[in-house]
Amino acid sequence: MKKHNFYAGPSILSQYTIKNTADAVLDFAGTGLSLLEISHRSKEFSAVMDEARALVKELLDVPAGYDVVYLGGGASLQFCMVPYNLLKKKAAYLETGTWAVNAIKEAKLFGEVDVVASSKDANFTFIPKGYTVPDDADYFHITTNNTIFGTEMRYDPDVKVPLVADMSSDIFSRPIDVSKYDIIYAGAQKNLAPAGVTIAIVREDALGKVERAIPTMLDYRTHIKKGSMFNTPPCLPVFAALQTLRYYKELGGVKVLEKMNLEKAAILYDEIDRNKLFRGTVVPEDRSIMNVCFVMNDEYKELEEEFAQFASSKGMVGIKGHRSVGGFRASLYNAMPKSSVEALIATMQEFEKNH
Amino acid sequence: MKKHNFYAGPSILSQYTIKNTADAVLDFAGTGLSLLEISHRSKEFSAVMDEARALVKELLDVPAGYDVVYLGGGASLQFCMVPYNLLKKKAAYLETGTWAVNAIKEAKLFGEVDVVASSKDANFTFIPKGYTVPDDADYFHITTNNTIFGTEMRYDPDVKVPLVADMSSDIFSRPIDVSKYDIIYAGAQKNLAPAGVTIAIVREDALGKVERAIPTMLDYRTHIKKGSMFNTPPCLPVFAALQTLRYYKELGGVKVLEKMNLEKAAILYDEIDRNKLFRGTVVPEDRSIMNVCFVMNDEYKELEEEFAQFASSKGMVGIKGHRSVGGFRASLYNAMPKSSVEALIATMQEFEKNH
Repeated sequence: MKKHNFYAGPSILSQYTIKNTADAVLDFAGTGLSLLEISHRSKEFSAVMDEARALVKELLDVPAGYDVVYLGGGASLQFCMVPYNLLKKKAAYLETGTWAVNAIKEAKLFGEVDVVASSKDANFTFIPKGYTVPDDADYFHITTNNTIFGTEMRYDPDVKVPLVADMSSDIFSRPIDVSKYDIIYAGAQKNLAPAGVTIAIVREDALGKVERAIPTMLDYRTHIKKGSMFNTPPCLPVFAALQTLRYYKELGGVKVLEKMNLEKAAILYDEIDRNKLFRGTVVPEDRSIMNVCFVMNDEYKELEEEFAQFASSKGMVGIKGHRSVGGFRASLYNAMPKSSVEALIATMQEFEKNH
Repeated sequence: MKKHNFYAGPSILSQYTIKNTADAVLDFAGTGLSLLEISHRSKEFSAVMDEARALVKELLDVPAGYDVVYLGGGASLQFCMVPYNLLKKKAAYLETGTWAVNAIKEAKLFGEVDVVASSKDANFTFIPKGYTVPDDADYFHITTNNTIFGTEMRYDPDVKVPLVADMSSDIFSRPIDVSKYDIIYAGAQKNLAPAGVTIAIVREDALGKVERAIPTMLDYRTHIKKGSMFNTPPCLPVFAALQTLRYYKELGGVKVLEKMNLEKAAILYDEIDRNKLFRGTVVPEDRSIMNVCFVMNDEYKELEEEFAQFASSKGMVGIKGHRSVGGFRASLYNAMPKSSVEALIATMQEFEKNH
């Protein structure tokens, strides 16, 4: 049976990425050796890293003065790297979900943190608006997409202080104005690669302004200076990222991906709004096009487990909602084909008919 | 042509590991999904992580009171994690090569560092002996194998303070007495897995003794408490590690591997000592069985490039020595078959005959 992969992350990747990676595990770039066992200093892997950095710049139209680095350790490590590198006295954070909460916790180890707004009391069902970012903040940190709660800031905010964004779960889903940001970081395991690598897009002149000593591995300058090869990079995840980036370029870039994403999300949200059994959990204007969260309507609550099993029997994988929201979550990352979204919709309609 | 992979790292892995990983990239555990796109919270991947942790314990005979964690970020990140977690006032380090130098540099950010001995003035051609570790050191840090210089401590030192070891390039090459150590860490890309994951074996009661605030991701307790699933782990490298561990178990464990490694290293060192063109760079008693460093004898120095090309024409890959030593380095990690070592020896003998 065809499986439809709605996992929130690690999550669906293109068949182009999967096939090329499997091939390279057996024979990498005609070397007669596996991608798993080739030196990162080999000319074949150096070429992978160079192209993987260049394609991020090309696809996101990264301006001069920025560098792209591939790092190990996961986006969670960025939660402390950002303040380590940028926080002098005070940082401002927007609290929009679990990952924002975690980022705030780490920043507090390095200085004062001003949480300018939060939707915590409403279980993060919306993105706060109308907040004021203090002029004296060293930076303002946002989480553009909140995987667990299904909210998204699908715009680049205008603020007067340096902007930092965790774009782990929506990078490459739309064009972004990189020039508005000092640092963008993203764990790769949604729209880019398997787990194990994080990319950061860093404005070079944002660095070197704090007085504290920064451990070498946690200093962005270390990795910029060495082209992401200061230490052994996670070679296979970087190789897989390159395949995805090539695939995105071939498709026509992030504008094309955005159009596809908007279409996929629209048909699913339309079905959620129409179907008498279900309702969305997020205010309509902040709905994520990456993670679609929905629950059974109150009068059908007892059908939740039955629908989960029914969807599973139709090949749907990974649609259980996070325990802090409950219900269901369908993650519609870039690699998700519209046909899988249509299959989920058909499943919801068939289940509705049966009840 | 058959390639013989002598890379220093990332480096040769067993065909069992490579084949099973390639298969899982196409279909993981019969899920119909790729290992690259499966949730780390899925029952299939949770089983991988559990077995991967358990097999490290089994193969290295890890006593009770220790935990095994899989971490992202590389062994270089451990250079700051160790002092972050353990250094109260003073740490002692043995300076045996480039990685020890890097580890010392990071420790100095956290407290006083006593370098108890160094072979730096001799370009790290031996392991210092007869040093004294101060009784008031919070821990004593060693690098058991020095990849670049080809020296190895193939024993577990007796010291009165907690012992910490970077075993990145020789873990699983011999039985070790884990009970002598508080922390053992190892980047996986030599004897275990592709780059992108690091294992740490941690004595639990060694932790929680420093007063500084530790960033969540840099606190070993975070990862111990969550079974290495606090954040998304590097799933593919962990899966590949599991394959290698299963393969080691099937072979008979680390005692069997040690015997094989000793044999492989012995025949190559014998040839280096016999062959009039070459000489080893390390004092015989400290020669590594993982990384065999050798140069052309002075009177044949001008043949270096010619030998490099000749060896390459015979399928030898990755035998160029590190720039700080020059000459050649043949890395003979666990997965290296004796037949490849014999092929290198035959190449050296043929080259000798030609000159």
